[in-house]
Amino acid sequence: MLIVAALGGNALLRRGEKLAAQIQQHHVVDAVAQLAKLCTGNELIVTHGNGPQVGLLALESANDPELERPYPFDVLGAQTQGMIGYWLLQALTNAVPSRESVALVTQTLVDVNDPAFTHPTKFVGHGYGEVEAQALAASNGWSVARDGALWRRVVASPEPREIIEGPVIERLARRGTIVVGVGGGGVPVAREDGVLRGIDAVIDKDLATALLAISVGADLMVLVTDVAGVIDGFATPDARVLSTVTVAQLRSRTFAPGSMGPKVESACRFVEATGRRAVIGALDDVLGLVEGTSGTSVVAH
Amino acid sequence: MLIVAALGGNALLRRGEKLAAQIQQHHVVDAVAQLAKLCTGNELIVTHGNGPQVGLLALESANDPELERPYPFDVLGAQTQGMIGYWLLQALTNAVPSRESVALVTQTLVDVNDPAFTHPTKFVGHGYGEVEAQALAASNGWSVARDGALWRRVVASPEPREIIEGPVIERLARRGTIVVGVGGGGVPVAREDGVLRGIDAVIDKDLATALLAISVGADLMVLVTDVAGVIDGFATPDARVLSTVTVAQLRSRTFAPGSMGPKVESACRFVEATGRRAVIGALDDVLGLVEGTSGTSVVAH
Repeated sequence: MLIVAALGGNALLRRGEKLAAQIQQHHVVDAVAQLAKLCTGNELIVTHGNGPQVGLLALESANDPELERPYPFDVLGAQTQGMIGYWLLQALTNAVPSRESVALVTQTLVDVNDPAFTHPTKFVGHGYGEVEAQALAASNGWSVARDGALWRRVVASPEPREIIEGPVIERLARRGTIVVGVGGGGVPVAREDGVLRGIDAVIDKDLATALLAISVGADLMVLVTDVAGVIDGFATPDARVLSTVTVAQLRSRTFAPGSMGPKVESACRFVEATGRRAVIGALDDVLGLVEGTSGTSVVAH
Repeated sequence: MLIVAALGGNALLRRGEKLAAQIQQHHVVDAVAQLAKLCTGNELIVTHGNGPQVGLLALESANDPELERPYPFDVLGAQTQGMIGYWLLQALTNAVPSRESVALVTQTLVDVNDPAFTHPTKFVGHGYGEVEAQALAASNGWSVARDGALWRRVVASPEPREIIEGPVIERLARRGTIVVGVGGGGVPVAREDGVLRGIDAVIDKDLATALLAISVGADLMVLVTDVAGVIDGFATPDARVLSTVTVAQLRSRTFAPGSMGPKVESACRFVEATGRRAVIGALDDVLGLVEGTSGTSVVAH
C-alpha cells in the first residue's frame, strides 16, 4: 500500500538541543531506521517539518550585513528542503539500498487572500523570554507570540490548496521510489494569470501532508510525533492515549494550535476525504502505527 | 535529443551584485526564458553553479552565535540546491507549462583520498582585499587565495566520481520531465563499506555536469557562461572566439583554473567519452549553441 508519513520537528531536533548539523543528521539517521521498516511491501512518501531550521536560517539572513533585507520565507523554506531533504535522502539511500530514493523540491499553492496573512500564527525559530522577544520583534519587524513558557516569532501560515509537484511525487512513489517531498509543508507559492510566484509565508506541514496524501490517493497517512498519540483528558489523572477515534469524536474536542491541533485537523481531513485511516503516534513503534496497535488511529466511523 | 545544460554562476548573479534573493531570482527567470527554447523537441537536464550562494551561507553559518561550528559544505551545498533548485523549478514551471519540471537533491561521490583535500582550490563567496582576506582566514580557519585582483576563500574540490542520483535523473528526463539536478556539482559524499556520508568540500559544477552528461548518455552538453565562447589569443589583438575546436587542440592549450579551465576540461571529457559535441558559450543565443552557429563547439576530430 501507499503510505504517506510526516516526520515532526522532533525527528530532527529534541527540545532544548542546539541546531548543530551533526545532531540533526544523527536524529535523521535514527528516524530513518524506523521509517525503513515501512518500506517492506509498501510504497513510501516522507514529508517533514522545518520550524526550527527555517527559524535559524531566517535569523542568519536577518543578521547578514550584506543583505538589505532578509531572504523571504519561500526562499528560506526551499533552503531547508534542500538541507533536510539531503539528510533524509542520504539516510534512506543507506538504510534501504535496494530501493531508489529521491528528494524533490516541492511548491505548495496558497491563496493570497488567505486570512492568515493578516493574522500570523505559525511558530518559527527559538523560544525567548518576553523582553528579548519583544526587542527582537521591534528590531526585525517580526510578529511574536507566546508558546508555552516562552515567546517565539510567528509567521503567516496560509491554507495549502494544491501540491504543485503532487503528480510526479505520486508517479515516482507508485513505481517503488521512496520520495521525500513537501518539506516544511512545501514552498508557498501563489498563482496569478497562470504564473507561480513565491510567497513570504510558511505552511503547516501536517495540513500540507494531508493534502498530499489525499491527492496521491494514499492508503494510510502516518503523522509521527514525540508523544504516543492523541491524549484524552490531557493533564488530568485519567489521561490516556486514544487508540481508535472517529472524526466526529475528534471534531468535538479542541486542541491547542501549534502542537497537536494541526495533526488532529490533518488526520480528520484525510479520513473525511478518503474514508481511510490516519494514525498519529511515536516513531519508536512505527510498525505498530501501521498495524493499528500503537498510536491513535483516526477512522471514519 | 537529450541535452544537459549547465548554468554558470553569472546566470544567477552578475559580478559586483549583492546576493539579494530578488536579484538572483530575476536572473533565473531571464536564464530560463532562454533555456525554455531548448525544450522544443528535446529532453533537458539543467545543472547550475552555487559558488557565491554557498559562500554567503557559509559566512552566515560561521557568524551564527548559536552554532559552535559552522555547517559543513555538504549541508550548505544542499541548502543551495534547495534554494536555486526552487528558483529554477518555478521559472521552468512558468516558462514551459506543457512539460513537467522537477528539482532533485543530488549527491556526488568523491574519493576521501583525493589530493584536493590537501590542496584546496575552489573559490567560494566574495572577493576581499588581501588584508581583510587574511584576517578572515585567521579568524575562521579558512584557506584563501588570489582570484584576479581580489582574494577569496578556497575550499577542497575533489574529483566527481559518480552522480548517485544519475539513474533517476536520466529516467525522468527521457520521459520528458525537465530535470534540475547536480546543483553546485552535487552534494559531496563518500562511500565507505557501502554507506554514504557527507564530505566537507565543494565540487566543480562543470566537471560534475560532464560526468552526469556522460552517465545519462546525453546527445549534447551545453556549458553556459558569460562570454561568447573559448577565446583564442586571449588578451592579444588577434583574440577571437573559437567556433569549432577539437579535443586535441584544446588539450594543447592551458586555461586558468576557476574560470574557463574547468569548462574546457569538462567539454574535453564529455567529447572523449562519447564522441559527441559539447559547446561553451553565452546564454543569449542558446539555439545558436545547439545548432553550432554560436559559442565554441568542442568535437572529437
